[in-house]
Amino acid sequence: MDTKVVLDTIWVLVTAMLVFFMNLGFAMVESGFARVKNCVNILSKNFIVFAISSIAFWVIGWGFMFGDGNPFIGIKGLFFLSGQDNSPATGEAYQGVYNSISWATVPFLAKFFFQLVFAGTAATIVSGAVAERIKYISFIVFSFIMVGIMYPITGHWIWGGGWLQKLGMFDFAGSSVVHSVGGWAALAGVLLLGPRFGKYGDNGKINPIPGHNLAIATIGTFVLWLGWFGFNPGSTMAAVPNDIARIAITTNSAAAAAVLSATLLSWLMLGKPDLGMTLNGCLAGLVAVTASCAYVSVGSSVIIGLIAGILVVLSVIGFDKLKIDDPVGALSVHLVNGVFGTIAVGLFAQDSIMPNTTGNGLFFGGGVKLLGAQLTGVLAVGIFTFVVALIAWSIIKSTIGLRVSLQEEMIGLDISEHGNTAYPEFLTRKPTYTYIGSGG
Amino acid sequence: MDTKVVLDTIWVLVTAMLVFFMNLGFAMVESGFARVKNCVNILSKNFIVFAISSIAFWVIGWGFMFGDGNPFIGIKGLFFLSGQDNSPATGEAYQGVYNSISWATVPFLAKFFFQLVFAGTAATIVSGAVAERIKYISFIVFSFIMVGIMYPITGHWIWGGGWLQKLGMFDFAGSSVVHSVGGWAALAGVLLLGPRFGKYGDNGKINPIPGHNLAIATIGTFVLWLGWFGFNPGSTMAAVPNDIARIAITTNSAAAAAVLSATLLSWLMLGKPDLGMTLNGCLAGLVAVTASCAYVSVGSSVIIGLIAGILVVLSVIGFDKLKIDDPVGALSVHLVNGVFGTIAVGLFAQDSIMPNTTGNGLFFGGGVKLLGAQLTGVLAVGIFTFVVALIAWSIIKSTIGLRVSLQEEMIGLDISEHGNTAYPEFLTRKPTYTYIGSGG
Amino acid sequence: MDTKVVLDTIWVLVTAMLVFFMNLGFAMVESGFARVKNCVNILSKNFIVFAISSIAFWVIGWGFMFGDGNPFIGIKGLFFLSGQDNSPATGEAYQGVYNSISWATVPFLAKFFFQLVFAGTAATIVSGAVAERIKYISFIVFSFIMVGIMYPITGHWIWGGGWLQKLGMFDFAGSSVVHSVGGWAALAGVLLLGPRFGKYGDNGKINPIPGHNLAIATIGTFVLWLGWFGFNPGSTMAAVPNDIARIAITTNSAAAAAVLSATLLSWLMLGKPDLGMTLNGCLAGLVAVTASCAYVSVGSSVIIGLIAGILVVLSVIGFDKLKIDDPVGALSVHLVNGVFGTIAVGLFAQDSIMPNTTGNGLFFGGGVKLLGAQLTGVLAVGIFTFVVALIAWSIIKSTIGLRVSLQEEMIGLDISEHGNTAYPEFLTRKPTYTYIGSGG
Repeated sequence: MDTKVVLDTIWVLVTAMLVFFMNLGFAMVESGFARVKNCVNILSKNFIVFAISSIAFWVIGWGFMFGDGNPFIGIKGLFFLSGQDNSPATGEAYQGVYNSISWATVPFLAKFFFQLVFAGTAATIVSGAVAERIKYISFIVFSFIMVGIMYPITGHWIWGGGWLQKLGMFDFAGSSVVHSVGGWAALAGVLLLGPRFGKYGDNGKINPIPGHNLAIATIGTFVLWLGWFGFNPGSTMAAVPNDIARIAITTNSAAAAAVLSATLLSWLMLGKPDLGMTLNGCLAGLVAVTASCAYVSVGSSVIIGLIAGILVVLSVIGFDKLKIDDPVGALSVHLVNGVFGTIAVGLFAQDSIMPNTTGNGLFFGGGVKLLGAQLTGVLAVGIFTFVVALIAWSIIKSTIGLRVSLQEEMIGLDISEHGNTAYPEFLTRKPTYTYIGSGG
Repeated sequence: MDTKVVLDTIWVLVTAMLVFFMNLGFAMVESGFARVKNCVNILSKNFIVFAISSIAFWVIGWGFMFGDGNPFIGIKGLFFLSGQDNSPATGEAYQGVYNSISWATVPFLAKFFFQLVFAGTAATIVSGAVAERIKYISFIVFSFIMVGIMYPITGHWIWGGGWLQKLGMFDFAGSSVVHSVGGWAALAGVLLLGPRFGKYGDNGKINPIPGHNLAIATIGTFVLWLGWFGFNPGSTMAAVPNDIARIAITTNSAAAAAVLSATLLSWLMLGKPDLGMTLNGCLAGLVAVTASCAYVSVGSSVIIGLIAGILVVLSVIGFDKLKIDDPVGALSVHLVNGVFGTIAVGLFAQDSIMPNTTGNGLFFGGGVKLLGAQLTGVLAVGIFTFVVALIAWSIIKSTIGLRVSLQEEMIGLDISEHGNTAYPEFLTRKPTYTYIGSGG
Repeated sequence: MDTKVVLDTIWVLVTAMLVFFMNLGFAMVESGFARVKNCVNILSKNFIVFAISSIAFWVIGWGFMFGDGNPFIGIKGLFFLSGQDNSPATGEAYQGVYNSISWATVPFLAKFFFQLVFAGTAATIVSGAVAERIKYISFIVFSFIMVGIMYPITGHWIWGGGWLQKLGMFDFAGSSVVHSVGGWAALAGVLLLGPRFGKYGDNGKINPIPGHNLAIATIGTFVLWLGWFGFNPGSTMAAVPNDIARIAITTNSAAAAAVLSATLLSWLMLGKPDLGMTLNGCLAGLVAVTASCAYVSVGSSVIIGLIAGILVVLSVIGFDKLKIDDPVGALSVHLVNGVFGTIAVGLFAQDSIMPNTTGNGLFFGGGVKLLGAQLTGVLAVGIFTFVVALIAWSIIKSTIGLRVSLQEEMIGLDISEHGNTAYPEFLTRKPTYTYIGSGG
């Protein structure tokens, strides 16, 4: 076997494992930021969602995303990875129906593994935003639709040889493909679900509902930060030393800068350095640099991170003012910064960093051509995903239902949906709803 | 140094680290599924057990398992890795006393590291089943015996050039060598220990004793799932692209399928989707595919997973009916599915997947030859391990004692064995024993 | 690209990720060992510290440490990694201003990443010792100074081509460079801060203040153990099979031995096997073997571990007698065993293990030459770091202040510094201060 194939396979598998591990990260961030009475439910959702994803992406998602087809969708080798494929590439010409990913040298199932863990990430993003009131079965059904159909279609556009790829849009590791898609799907769900009971009071009052366990939320964020060293540097799908080292640093620098800007801004605006904002700042920086991590300088990644940290704080506050209830800040992290990160490619990309790919962005003399492609991608992905998700959520709502009853919500989904609680021996109290004035 | 040696060494060390990390997984699953009053004790057991294993396998275990010897046990180079060995293999003939593992190209201490973390796993499996009533010192002594003597002997039979290997039994990553061995040793301990106080009431009533922290149990299961990407793909002990990619996918597919079947069956049988069953379903699928992961198709791995998920739910309920008290479901996960997984090789193996190894299993036209070898292995390993473990536990019982006093059990092992508690500032209540009717 | 460069880069990046992950380990050990009222504060400190480190080491720390300069400090290519560098090395001569690390073949940003995660570790060590009474902003400012200036200077002496390196001192992975430096800086802070309120009573009474969550402390320790497989074997900065395999085993063996000796000694001295001592024993063994892991036999690593486990138990008790209040045992782990580990090189090193480096230590017939260099290093690093840290802490104290008010300390830093609590729904009680007799 060609040595390059072995090197690339080791790299792709190890980074895929790190991305898989992000499921733990999401599970802990989301359950930590939610109330104790819904903890089992969130853990259950975040655990089963990767199982659902594994089956859905195997059955149909991979084929829609990477099967040869038209600019809109893959149509060959659709089901159960059944198309022909002669990966790994060892010199001979590619023979198969997954041409868009034939450039990677690694074995077919290594490609599938890496893409599967990405698909799974998109579905977990939804989980947090719809937490504390969605029915378990409804989330499961939506996850299957999302990973089996929705995510692969827009993924095909950008990574599968589709029309946005041809247009010259660049999204290196998925600020759009993964994060904004997860965010748009979540937004549709949140709007149909409505806010949690008691979140928004009369006269525009917003009641903070603090998470029940910031220790596990911190565990989760560290695990996600670690996982992103798989997510971004692994997206080379090849062990190219200069690229993977640089991407590790741009990824880390954006995260670090966003931690600092989000902490500082929350300190200034809220009077205290808020740990929740610090953690979400980190995630925001990571999401924001995901599209551009391979194309920008370390300095640019710091700036992208600083902006991301500011955006996430303002977004969290802004969504609350709009009475869009997102218990864990998933929309602010993944949707807002997924969009920003995609646009950032059009601003900060430098041709010299990864020649013959993006060319220069606006801030480096490249004009608005790249920026235009990025904006087109943002809009197209956003409109498609939001509309299709709205339809999917609506069908679920009108059939098996979307939201638990008010009584079940009050009791908590742990008891009502799963029949047990996360910490049966710890004494807990009802959360104190400290009603604060309108305006934040 | 030969490039292949470097590639293989990176792969073996990285996957060994992932398997090491499974110690955290077991610690969290087991302590999360136990009561708060025994949390420090379980954490202590699961932490010290890998230290014990590290010393025991170095002192004697490695030699018994991989030392040249007879079909039953290794006898050369027994103590402290002191036998001759000229690994890594770089062309010249092998010169040493560990011939059965001379096929791996990696340095001697890389082989030892990988095998050590496997040996450690077998010992941690016991910990969960005997939890909440065993004396700390007795567990420590048993662990030393298990990793130093028992595990290496059956390991020698299957992986060390012994009689089962010669017979044509295949256990790729250890459904039998590691998991069923851990399970049989645990079963012997459980039978001698008896059930926890209050677990089985009069008139066949079974009292559920819920775990105290499902958040850390979920952490643990995710970590184990991750660790299994080291356990199974690492068992190639070589970075062979097609094999390690395929094994990653069969491993993951079985886990995913088992999560779904266990969740669904618990939903149907218990009326609610039980998180504990979901988590144990995952582990069951992973254990079950461990023996066959290199030899079966992705489709077969899904079927193996589906069966494993069903088996674990039925086993958990079944063991309770037999009044065999296993606080964390370790017997259902590791013993039942370790046995099933070993048999599954004889059913699902395909010669075309890893030529010149297993040949075809029963379902692929290979007849019962392979199945017969697998069943022989299951029986031989089971009888030997169960009997020897029973003797070892009995000797411990009659000397230093096996079980804490009833009073100590009531107070909890944290106070009685360790003098402190895991969460001294949280207010806890006595668990409510909800007596439910016989039959479930 | 040269295959060796790719192999080395994969190894360096993967091990750097593991070291990054140690931030989670420290966060959990430290918050688990502290009281519930300070949990958010410790999580916040341990989360933001790596962000601070990432910026500080990029801005100036790297340049001071690895820039060409004089024996005392780096002066070329100081800011923002702006010096010339033609890494990776692919045959041509090195051209750049970071000559001391030009031996590594990997890309420049891979070197930076690996060194950055080490620098971050030194800062996190401080966090634990000063916990439960330091002001958040003061810790942040000190961390920036430490990672930007202090750590790089002594690092330059030993790893950056400075005077201790020229003197023949060896510190393979940083018992001194990282751990004792963190320890000395922490000690200066602890002395200026004074003990927590209520820790030391009248008549020499010492009040134990138990940690609030031993489950997460155990998570943290396992994660650190895992991370050390990056810390030590990764410090080769090259995938050299025999070295990285051997270092993995010496690292693990020392940890295992220290777990056992610390547990046993605490059992003998305190009457019970104390989980906190077991966990800190593990860390002590890891710290102690860090300097010598590449230069000693497996047997020696076991002995080093056994001694480390004893040292940590005696130190924890000893510091308390001296009324030096270290809530998590960081001084006993990192300072005492960092010093011991550095000295251990001079005792246990064997020329045959890594020829042309250390030569033989005292116990292997090498006389006191190596030992003398090690002791010189210990003293020089200790005096410099302690004095500079004392000055830095003093300036902080006299400007923005060092310690929260007594009232804030009583309320807890979570409320007073961050405005929220880690587990708002769990009912907690005030810790019971069990006053015990002097001498215990």
